[in-house]
Amino acid sequence: MKFRSAFLATMLCLTGTASQAADPIALRDMGSFHVGGRIAELSGLPVQDIVRVPGGPTSKLDPNGRYPVEQMYVQYFLVQNRKGKWPLLMWHGGGLTGVTYETTPDGREGWRDMFIRKGWDVYISDAVERGRSSFASPDIWKSQPVFLTQTDPWERFRIGPGAGSFDADPAKRKLLPGNQFPIEAFDAFTKQIVPRWLSTDDAVLAGYVALIDKVCPCVLLTHSQGGMFGFKAAEARPDKIKGIVSVEAASAGNLDKAPLLKSIPILGVFGDYIEQDSRWVAYRKSDFAYFDAIKAAGGSVDLIDLPKIGITGNSHMMMMDKNNREIAEQISKWLISKELADP
Amino acid sequence: MKFRSAFLATMLCLTGTASQAADPIALRDMGSFHVGGRIAELSGLPVQDIVRVPGGPTSKLDPNGRYPVEQMYVQYFLVQNRKGKWPLLMWHGGGLTGVTYETTPDGREGWRDMFIRKGWDVYISDAVERGRSSFASPDIWKSQPVFLTQTDPWERFRIGPGAGSFDADPAKRKLLPGNQFPIEAFDAFTKQIVPRWLSTDDAVLAGYVALIDKVCPCVLLTHSQGGMFGFKAAEARPDKIKGIVSVEAASAGNLDKAPLLKSIPILGVFGDYIEQDSRWVAYRKSDFAYFDAIKAAGGSVDLIDLPKIGITGNSHMMMMDKNNREIAEQISKWLISKELADP
Repeated sequence: MKFRSAFLATMLCLTGTASQAADPIALRDMGSFHVGGRIAELSGLPVQDIVRVPGGPTSKLDPNGRYPVEQMYVQYFLVQNRKGKWPLLMWHGGGLTGVTYETTPDGREGWRDMFIRKGWDVYISDAVERGRSSFASPDIWKSQPVFLTQTDPWERFRIGPGAGSFDADPAKRKLLPGNQFPIEAFDAFTKQIVPRWLSTDDAVLAGYVALIDKVCPCVLLTHSQGGMFGFKAAEARPDKIKGIVSVEAASAGNLDKAPLLKSIPILGVFGDYIEQDSRWVAYRKSDFAYFDAIKAAGGSVDLIDLPKIGITGNSHMMMMDKNNREIAEQISKWLISKELADP
Repeated sequence: MKFRSAFLATMLCLTGTASQAADPIALRDMGSFHVGGRIAELSGLPVQDIVRVPGGPTSKLDPNGRYPVEQMYVQYFLVQNRKGKWPLLMWHGGGLTGVTYETTPDGREGWRDMFIRKGWDVYISDAVERGRSSFASPDIWKSQPVFLTQTDPWERFRIGPGAGSFDADPAKRKLLPGNQFPIEAFDAFTKQIVPRWLSTDDAVLAGYVALIDKVCPCVLLTHSQGGMFGFKAAEARPDKIKGIVSVEAASAGNLDKAPLLKSIPILGVFGDYIEQDSRWVAYRKSDFAYFDAIKAAGGSVDLIDLPKIGITGNSHMMMMDKNNREIAEQISKWLISKELADP
């Protein structure tokens, strides 16, 4: 079995005829860890009686004590044949987790595996408060999360044409014309959504900076809310960031600190339909102001406005859109042009 | 580059001299999906004004609408050289996620990668309500989660000798003598803990059954609370389950349905110190009663009582213990003996 597989792998390599997606993925290692966080202590709260397993014995739950909070979960995949010169850290947007970059909701290959196949060591994290990073009790964070309906991403992520375009009945949902989002898997996509706190930005940023201190120098690939964290983390650790690909940052960094990023090659990527939604116009405007401040300090910012290069129909979730591979190729070409990866 | 790697892989296969942990991991595919769940609808709640990004525009958050809830996140790794005859599904315990089976808190290889290296296709899930599976609003689940202090697992998972053995100061923590848990990484371990609802068992089980319907026939490897879900899921889909490895199930299935498992080879694995904690005596007793009912119906249940075969010091989190590889080897030997994997 082993011999046959090695032979097959050799044949595939020599002939190069198999489709890329069918090639095996060879990793020199993979794994995960939690990084950052702090210990919070609670005291003076009443002890509860709980039953942990149905029919099992009652046991005491004493909420007083020490809690690890604000840590961040990170999963990594280190390739056998490395072409990226630094690790590539993929940071997701608001109300989502690292799942953003995995298999698309309709089952196609996502950007994680595309970039692994391109020879990048990839680190995917769940921001503090989300997914496998866990969250803190309301006694510690003093607030409750907000929950998003299915309506929200349909209308806000430029899948449908804004307010009123979502309907419970998939057949009645209105779509921006030519949209590339795999709408048949929209309900599957919404299963990826996690609740979101509006008071944890400082903790989220601290988690990202702790990750940078652990695994960088590196290249950041950020999306939406993750864009702001990427820029602010780069302001905190400019020497550790060798490149930033910002996909539709929903807000930018601190304008007065933008000059700190002048030595970092930056790429901003924007999808379609932005002019049709005042929120996205505002978000992009704030990105542009930040980019201008970096350029004014002598820095380098490139833009890919997808419709302007003939790639149309992309929603805010372009890493899941039907043409996600085409966009990954554009990003990859830019990374190679900046000598952040071998061709 | 590609050629060199294939050559290297061939050399490793032919010579077989490299250490197992240093070999590359070859996957024919990997990915993730969410399975199961339902749509919950909320109505009649007031619309909120929120600011999604600091300094950004205010936007409306209307909590009324449709929410996907009770879906389960699943991540899979499909090996190039398959030896396991079926997929191996790893189900974690209460208050934890699939991270249980990944890299240990002190950075050693976990059971996920050990079994992948042994040729198993591995599926790791986060039970409904936890990690990347997300959770529902209190308007839908009508309850709040409970949060565990660091004291709880130290005293309850047979790391320290019960009540009073945990201390904020690591130097003052009391340890069960000879314990194999990597105590220097205990604080890192507690970062893996996620909040837990006490009212969601039916939804958790439904998620697991949905996973079985999607990817099985399969073999289950369960831990603690996951043991109960494994047995109950097997009762619901006995023909789909080809083997069960139950590591310290904290409770068993339905006694009257145990005969449904009579055609499934089952292995129960138990660690050290159980007699020193009445809770663990009670849990094991309920497992034994369930096993006896399966055997009375003509089924087959094997036991590995680790101390009885000279493997001592194992906590409840034995997949993270310093001798986790030794226990994985015992489980692997059993799987091969039941013809569930090629040697």
